[in-house]
Amino acid sequence: MAHIYIYSPSGAVRDKAAFKRGVARLKKLGHEVELDADALSSHTRFAGDDATRLAAIHRAADSGANVALISRGGYGLTRILPGIKYKQVAKAIAKGTQFVGLSDFTAFQNALLAKTGAVTWAGPALGEDFGAEQPDDIMEACFDDMVSGQGEGAGWHFSTACATANAKRRSGVWAHDAVLWGGNLAVLVSLLGTPYFPQIKNGVLFLEDVGEHPYRIERMLTQLLHAGVLAHQKAIVLGQFNNYKLTPHDKGFKLQSVIDWLRTQIKAPVLTDLPFGHVPTKLCLPVGQKIDLVVEDRDALLLWAHTDH
Amino acid sequence: MAHIYIYSPSGAVRDKAAFKRGVARLKKLGHEVELDADALSSHTRFAGDDATRLAAIHRAADSGANVALISRGGYGLTRILPGIKYKQVAKAIAKGTQFVGLSDFTAFQNALLAKTGAVTWAGPALGEDFGAEQPDDIMEACFDDMVSGQGEGAGWHFSTACATANAKRRSGVWAHDAVLWGGNLAVLVSLLGTPYFPQIKNGVLFLEDVGEHPYRIERMLTQLLHAGVLAHQKAIVLGQFNNYKLTPHDKGFKLQSVIDWLRTQIKAPVLTDLPFGHVPTKLCLPVGQKIDLVVEDRDALLLWAHTDH
Repeated sequence: MAHIYIYSPSGAVRDKAAFKRGVARLKKLGHEVELDADALSSHTRFAGDDATRLAAIHRAADSGANVALISRGGYGLTRILPGIKYKQVAKAIAKGTQFVGLSDFTAFQNALLAKTGAVTWAGPALGEDFGAEQPDDIMEACFDDMVSGQGEGAGWHFSTACATANAKRRSGVWAHDAVLWGGNLAVLVSLLGTPYFPQIKNGVLFLEDVGEHPYRIERMLTQLLHAGVLAHQKAIVLGQFNNYKLTPHDKGFKLQSVIDWLRTQIKAPVLTDLPFGHVPTKLCLPVGQKIDLVVEDRDALLLWAHTDH
Repeated sequence: MAHIYIYSPSGAVRDKAAFKRGVARLKKLGHEVELDADALSSHTRFAGDDATRLAAIHRAADSGANVALISRGGYGLTRILPGIKYKQVAKAIAKGTQFVGLSDFTAFQNALLAKTGAVTWAGPALGEDFGAEQPDDIMEACFDDMVSGQGEGAGWHFSTACATANAKRRSGVWAHDAVLWGGNLAVLVSLLGTPYFPQIKNGVLFLEDVGEHPYRIERMLTQLLHAGVLAHQKAIVLGQFNNYKLTPHDKGFKLQSVIDWLRTQIKAPVLTDLPFGHVPTKLCLPVGQKIDLVVEDRDALLLWAHTDH
């Protein structure tokens, strides 16, 4: 069982009931939960002003906890990226604190990867995941694997459409010793052209997003394409893209149109259906970790070396 | 009076009545209007597939018209940027064809600027502007100045809030021989990190956007900031940002919060209230043109050399 430090680097927590349920759930799972002093602070839409959120990040790094878990995502990390003490965070990670989160947290994870190479986890947030009325079994099992250090990988079953699109590729190892990285597409793309964007040459890039129309997803993928990022990846793995609205103007343009188009633009395989994103069922994925991607029929596996914490 | 070539490089025209009204209005103003063969084509949400829209752009360049005017914006240019024959377009501009548009057209304008240095005009679109039930007087006057080559600049009156924020700066020339560039913020930022983003060192950057929440506007400005773009500008000029919805979660965070924050991040002045954006009243602004920015009390002037066409 772990010492879990809860802090708020992004948006202010409004759903305090979910926050409390999340804390109770983690305790029920046997964990020791420590709350950052500003976990529930609020400054306009942020969980405290910039200095407050930066201090919270650095307290999380100094907490000695096994896991530093975000209360929620939202918006707030990109504007404080220049103030983060990346070496301090990387040292905490080296000593065994695992940083976990998603969405806006993508900015922190990829900036840290760019600056230090340190590995963080794309995974749940306290409120939406552990604070759900019924937390997702797979989410909890993957989190448990991450906490215990017993996890050696993550797998999923992809759709027949994805299998058909990749029918010419043989089963086997599709990427070897590749760096797993990515997260929220909009947040990742918001780092392009800045010192906080990782330069990953042999990568497996995973992406998800919420509330973005497929044309915007395509525009963001186009930016990654034209920036030369996609050409350096061994595979693109698409998670869940949801909560957007198609309009009559789309006339058949949809998410699948974007995926089909993407496959015409790059040589690397595009896999879909990764259980990750703004959905209850989410894997824990080590961002910055060397992994193998193995595909057998309609099953994909991301395998990472067993690590002790 | 001018020969105006209408073409559709981005979204499909759905409001055909506005399109027709726009054509009629231009004719009434004494212009000769030529319609591209695919001006009203439709392929899902696009005005024809990629090859169709690329061909339309190149036909516009070969038209020998005085003005090549987009029917509308939407989305569609970023994905075809690699297929545009920039030298061919720049030659057409050198021979006297002025390319005019906005919104998604920002991608074309800035890619062309990056590739060739050629000047285009941020200005109206056919449907929304000339096709309005009552076209805006200032928009038409500025368009007329652009067409006639008589325009030597554009000016506007800014708010007292803007004047107060810049109270320590003396009236006079705030930028000399600077390159005017910019356009739609989201579209411009979608070029960052790619070969289509202009490297402008002594610039006056103007920006507008529609339907983007202030936190997203801030995230995009943050990207320009962290990419080092803003530090190289002599001034940032903000046009109209509209059609977004604040939420209870914002708790006082608003567009002005973003502008206030921006002013703490850069040394260059930030001017507001430029009449440009997704609004009826819009100036015609030469993107890529050397300009002087002159400020006297609450009046700003962008001055460019008189050019013959």
